[in-house]
Amino acid sequence: MHSNNVIYFDNAATSWPKPEETLQAMEHYLRHVGGNPGRSGHRHSLDAARIVMNAREAVAELFGIQDALNVAFTKNATEALNLATRGLLHPGDHVITSSMEHNSVMRPLRALEKEGLELTVIPCSSSGELDPADLLPAIRRNTRAVYLTAASNVTGTLMPLKEVGMLTREKGLIFCVDAAQAGGSFPLDVTELGIDLLAFTGHKALYGPQGTGGLYIREGLEKDIRPLMMGGTGSRSEFEEQPDFLPDKFEAGTPNTVGLAGLEAGVRFVLRRGVASIRAQEQELAGHLMNGLRTVPGLTLYGPEIPSRKIAVVSFTVEGLSPAEIAMALDEQDMIMSRPGLHCAPSAHKTLGTFPVGTTRFSLGAFNTAEQVQTAVKAVARLTATARRKG
Amino acid sequence: MHSNNVIYFDNAATSWPKPEETLQAMEHYLRHVGGNPGRSGHRHSLDAARIVMNAREAVAELFGIQDALNVAFTKNATEALNLATRGLLHPGDHVITSSMEHNSVMRPLRALEKEGLELTVIPCSSSGELDPADLLPAIRRNTRAVYLTAASNVTGTLMPLKEVGMLTREKGLIFCVDAAQAGGSFPLDVTELGIDLLAFTGHKALYGPQGTGGLYIREGLEKDIRPLMMGGTGSRSEFEEQPDFLPDKFEAGTPNTVGLAGLEAGVRFVLRRGVASIRAQEQELAGHLMNGLRTVPGLTLYGPEIPSRKIAVVSFTVEGLSPAEIAMALDEQDMIMSRPGLHCAPSAHKTLGTFPVGTTRFSLGAFNTAEQVQTAVKAVARLTATARRKG
Repeated sequence: MHSNNVIYFDNAATSWPKPEETLQAMEHYLRHVGGNPGRSGHRHSLDAARIVMNAREAVAELFGIQDALNVAFTKNATEALNLATRGLLHPGDHVITSSMEHNSVMRPLRALEKEGLELTVIPCSSSGELDPADLLPAIRRNTRAVYLTAASNVTGTLMPLKEVGMLTREKGLIFCVDAAQAGGSFPLDVTELGIDLLAFTGHKALYGPQGTGGLYIREGLEKDIRPLMMGGTGSRSEFEEQPDFLPDKFEAGTPNTVGLAGLEAGVRFVLRRGVASIRAQEQELAGHLMNGLRTVPGLTLYGPEIPSRKIAVVSFTVEGLSPAEIAMALDEQDMIMSRPGLHCAPSAHKTLGTFPVGTTRFSLGAFNTAEQVQTAVKAVARLTATARRKG
Repeated sequence: MHSNNVIYFDNAATSWPKPEETLQAMEHYLRHVGGNPGRSGHRHSLDAARIVMNAREAVAELFGIQDALNVAFTKNATEALNLATRGLLHPGDHVITSSMEHNSVMRPLRALEKEGLELTVIPCSSSGELDPADLLPAIRRNTRAVYLTAASNVTGTLMPLKEVGMLTREKGLIFCVDAAQAGGSFPLDVTELGIDLLAFTGHKALYGPQGTGGLYIREGLEKDIRPLMMGGTGSRSEFEEQPDFLPDKFEAGTPNTVGLAGLEAGVRFVLRRGVASIRAQEQELAGHLMNGLRTVPGLTLYGPEIPSRKIAVVSFTVEGLSPAEIAMALDEQDMIMSRPGLHCAPSAHKTLGTFPVGTTRFSLGAFNTAEQVQTAVKAVARLTATARRKG
């Protein structure tokens, strides 16, 4: 349907294309396996269960998780983050987060605030950076957890996970990381970083399909988390109570086996190329992209100036053109796919000073090239020159 | 991997094979569309949004839903049923359900009971049938809703939806139907039956993939339902509160677009063949299967004796052989896939008198044949004869 000349710069919304092996794993499941994992005992069901277990192990390997059973699969990062917030917190708890969070963290926390949760939102700098020194003074006697994105979905800004993890460990706080954007494109090791809860999605830099995601839960912490839903688990079927062990407690109902087949293949693709190698390539391209855009008159870039302080997500505005106008023109004239607006992160845009209009966002992935970056820079330059002549 | 000689009689766990068009729609999305629906404005994103809307319209057509926006997509029927129970009910409410319900209804209701919900479980007959006359005396002044499966996942027993729907409408109660098993294999029209909430799954008789499902919500009732999760919806992104309108209120996070592409294709397959026609074929095969199994010495069938009172799900036990032994032997010796045990429905098995060992379950789908039924009957007969000789 779409031409091969498409420049897909919307990988932070969902990565595309997917590796061929992601498609093949899904087709293999649909055509040759087809069973419901953990429900029956026949060969198709057992093969399906193996696929789910393999996906769990691939994710565990990617994030330095020692026991794959500490990964509970969800439909997306949003479900994982709701489990990590609404499933864990009580009225009277105090939690800390940053002003750069996505609505998948902000909306659950704001709703809980109305029910008596105490919430501190630490303001980040105008490039989206969190000063870890701001964390200690925010801690109260009833502080229970810190919720922090690994990298902003608007500017790519990396958060100081190491420093925050050291402090939360020292203070006995739960440290929850939203890895929706950074997972797969930046090295994240839960053990090394002292992460207790890590939410991820399958369809961005893990190169799996939509409909997949999950939550890593540090051993023991599952006892304190209430499931968002209950139902058939294929385990303890004789009881009308939800099982209390990992991962079944949080995986009620038939899982997305075909999606998990694709997720395993996507994560194996990432592991084979290496997160560090993907990171290096994306960092280089982001550097070219930012350098190119900086030469465009009337264009403002947001986020850290140095590529090493961010993942390959680049937000910008242009004088006299709205983000939607830019994105539409890039799509129509140059087949460049970008995302304009607020990116489901109004607080982040308030931090950057780009609320309520937002920015145009280019987000790179493992399949983007230097040539595409050059073409995009030229397209933006031409677009803004035309707008200046008309203006 | 698996031979074409496989006899797949586990369609109530998940249907297999899928129609070719289900696979093709998924591959088309992955290869040529790939965008995130409702997030960006470019052509790939708009095409993804159209796929989601088409899936909504197909489901609406299947269940007689006037406005497709009243369908909220979920990851499975379990999520939909949790939304319909945990999202709707309050401590002090009284609800009525049947003794034939799956744990996806029973586990949320039992958990809510501990928080102050009043619950009446109406006992069904030993064939799993509910006498609609038992409903009226169970209604109290604080009765809020009736939760009922359309058909048992253990015996296929059809429930008296029409009679219950008339009564709930008359009494102003919310009527919630679990269509996980019956949807697609038995005609269900929410308007005709007076259904307020209908939970469905995509991967059984709708012939879509796992990872899809949803809840039909009668217009206006969405105001009374709290979402299970909150987050990015691509709508009202400037607010840190979840939107309050259908379907966004209940669809936080990136949807399973590739799954919904497959779901639309599966539902279109059902609509093209016609639910009535699929139903007629499955009813005939279930009749042959039951007649055949009745001739096997020592075998007990459960559920209604007449195929018209059930969907094509057939549960049985054999004297001297456990359900697991039967299922394993059928798999190993005859490549017949069945499901032994409790089928995540302990209350149903208590009703039938088959708790805690359970039954062996054959569940038919649109691709099963009379020849497969004959082979299966012969295999069960041979198996039981061998066991009798050994015994």
